[in-house]
Amino acid sequence: MACTTARQGYNYTVLLSPQRVIADTNKAIHKILGGELRILKKIREYVVASGGKRIRPLFQYYLGAAYGVDSRTLISLGALIEIVHAASLLHDDVVDNADERRSRPTGAKLFGNKQVVLAGDHLLSSGLKYLSSMNNPAYMQIFTDSIQALTEAELMQMQYHFDLQTSTKIHNAIVDGKTATLFRAAGALVAAHRKSAELYASESARLGLEFGRYFQERDDYLDYFDATRLKKKGLQDFLNGIVTQPLILLLAHVNRHERKFLATEWEYARRHGKIQSEAGILSLMKKYTIQAFFAGELAERQTALLAGLAQLPEKRPREIIKAEFEKILAVRTL
Amino acid sequence: MACTTARQGYNYTVLLSPQRVIADTNKAIHKILGGELRILKKIREYVVASGGKRIRPLFQYYLGAAYGVDSRTLISLGALIEIVHAASLLHDDVVDNADERRSRPTGAKLFGNKQVVLAGDHLLSSGLKYLSSMNNPAYMQIFTDSIQALTEAELMQMQYHFDLQTSTKIHNAIVDGKTATLFRAAGALVAAHRKSAELYASESARLGLEFGRYFQERDDYLDYFDATRLKKKGLQDFLNGIVTQPLILLLAHVNRHERKFLATEWEYARRHGKIQSEAGILSLMKKYTIQAFFAGELAERQTALLAGLAQLPEKRPREIIKAEFEKILAVRTL
Repeated sequence: MACTTARQGYNYTVLLSPQRVIADTNKAIHKILGGELRILKKIREYVVASGGKRIRPLFQYYLGAAYGVDSRTLISLGALIEIVHAASLLHDDVVDNADERRSRPTGAKLFGNKQVVLAGDHLLSSGLKYLSSMNNPAYMQIFTDSIQALTEAELMQMQYHFDLQTSTKIHNAIVDGKTATLFRAAGALVAAHRKSAELYASESARLGLEFGRYFQERDDYLDYFDATRLKKKGLQDFLNGIVTQPLILLLAHVNRHERKFLATEWEYARRHGKIQSEAGILSLMKKYTIQAFFAGELAERQTALLAGLAQLPEKRPREIIKAEFEKILAVRTL
Repeated sequence: MACTTARQGYNYTVLLSPQRVIADTNKAIHKILGGELRILKKIREYVVASGGKRIRPLFQYYLGAAYGVDSRTLISLGALIEIVHAASLLHDDVVDNADERRSRPTGAKLFGNKQVVLAGDHLLSSGLKYLSSMNNPAYMQIFTDSIQALTEAELMQMQYHFDLQTSTKIHNAIVDGKTATLFRAAGALVAAHRKSAELYASESARLGLEFGRYFQERDDYLDYFDATRLKKKGLQDFLNGIVTQPLILLLAHVNRHERKFLATEWEYARRHGKIQSEAGILSLMKKYTIQAFFAGELAERQTALLAGLAQLPEKRPREIIKAEFEKILAVRTL
């Protein structure tokens, strides 16, 4: 299906612009998610309209192009990754009664629990069906591995929900599963397309994994220290009972009295679905210079990433991925 | 994983007993659903413990054996079908707030919405990952087709929820998608294993489809006319806003006054989550002899099925599948 458009529209010597990648990804998503049922059209429109920055398809496209993979394949693979991502977001949006008093996530607000689940299932099953028609066992392996890792990370996050004891190890496992997995998959798909036997150990997969980790940790940083850049309210992770790096770092430094304060705040958020003293939490972050420390960690990771990008074989995609990376993630101005 | 057990335990000349098929299917399910996380163990135990009659794996086993497929393959495929079925039941258990006052389904009662969704995702993703490792594109195609058909049928059922206008055509499409799909898949998998080019057009797939249709319609029959045999309360479909064959038949016969009565009952069930006058509905069924008419339809289908089973190539499995079919579905004593 995507093939037809691709054959009609792509000149294999020309690298697509980011705008074109996004537009073509949307078209591919529209085609993969078929079905004439009223409710299917609604889901399709929602997924195409709520597209966000399409960072995953952009990453897939320029990373693959840097290794000489053709546009047609990359647009299809990027659309499939975006579909899996959207399905995971929808299922993450399902709420329990206990969570009703929190700010309801977009999906559940629009559709209601039941439709959100089935909408996610529809995305996943249509994506898998299309993938199966591509008849490439390595692609299938990468996608089934990724979907499993995503789900396991969601379950792990649920098990450690509002658990202030969450360790760095558990936190890292959740970040890897929930976010880095799909970026690593983008890199592994490039390796698979080039018939490399090393899928996850390939250079492109390792670059994807590091990119994904950086992407998530940067989000965790902004949530505490510059939420306006994410266009949302700050301390959402604290509010939602998710332990991230800034909180782990802080807990390692505070005295017993301050730890008790944080535990009380945490319990208040769990019970009431709002934060009692944002200023109190942030002043502790300031006291122990968590922002500067975490920013330093991120800067190191960023340097390693840029060094990795500088190794990409093709100059044009390498420059675009770097420019896009700097623009979207704003690494310079962190 | 299942392979090791299989190589150890199976004698290829011996047909397994139904008890053994169920026990081995449970073992295979346990192995496919790996993971050490506390919550994963809980899901695994739930799925193995709540197994029900395992009609799908039994059907897979004896149908496949009748075509000479080996036990090892059939146990794995049957376990995968059961896993997809269990995932679909779990996602079907997710409830909206509006539905809270109804009798809550088992899954949602035990786990809560959020866990139910992720538990279903875990089943599906683990099953797909295992399937991908089997490295058979035809199996993969059949499973992705089936999962998509299941989801589309769930969405269709949601769109026609409490819609008294639901036509026979829509009803049949829902039955095919929700129930017959996985029985058809069992038959198609047998054809795929035998390297037949005809997956869904094969004799075994067509037999599976008819079996699945019969199985569901029989459930719909019992829900109105002999619910004790299903070990549950009757008229659950009416209560849950699902139009099935008895109601379609009845609506085609009633006069304007009676139709209004049914519409009022229907609206009462929708609003209050209970049935106002079970006796009133059943006495209309009696007046228009819906039970006898529908029983006649089912008997015809049963005759066709038994004729199909009589054609199976291997005598032993053919006899067992017929005996099991008669025992589990109790066709003779309908």
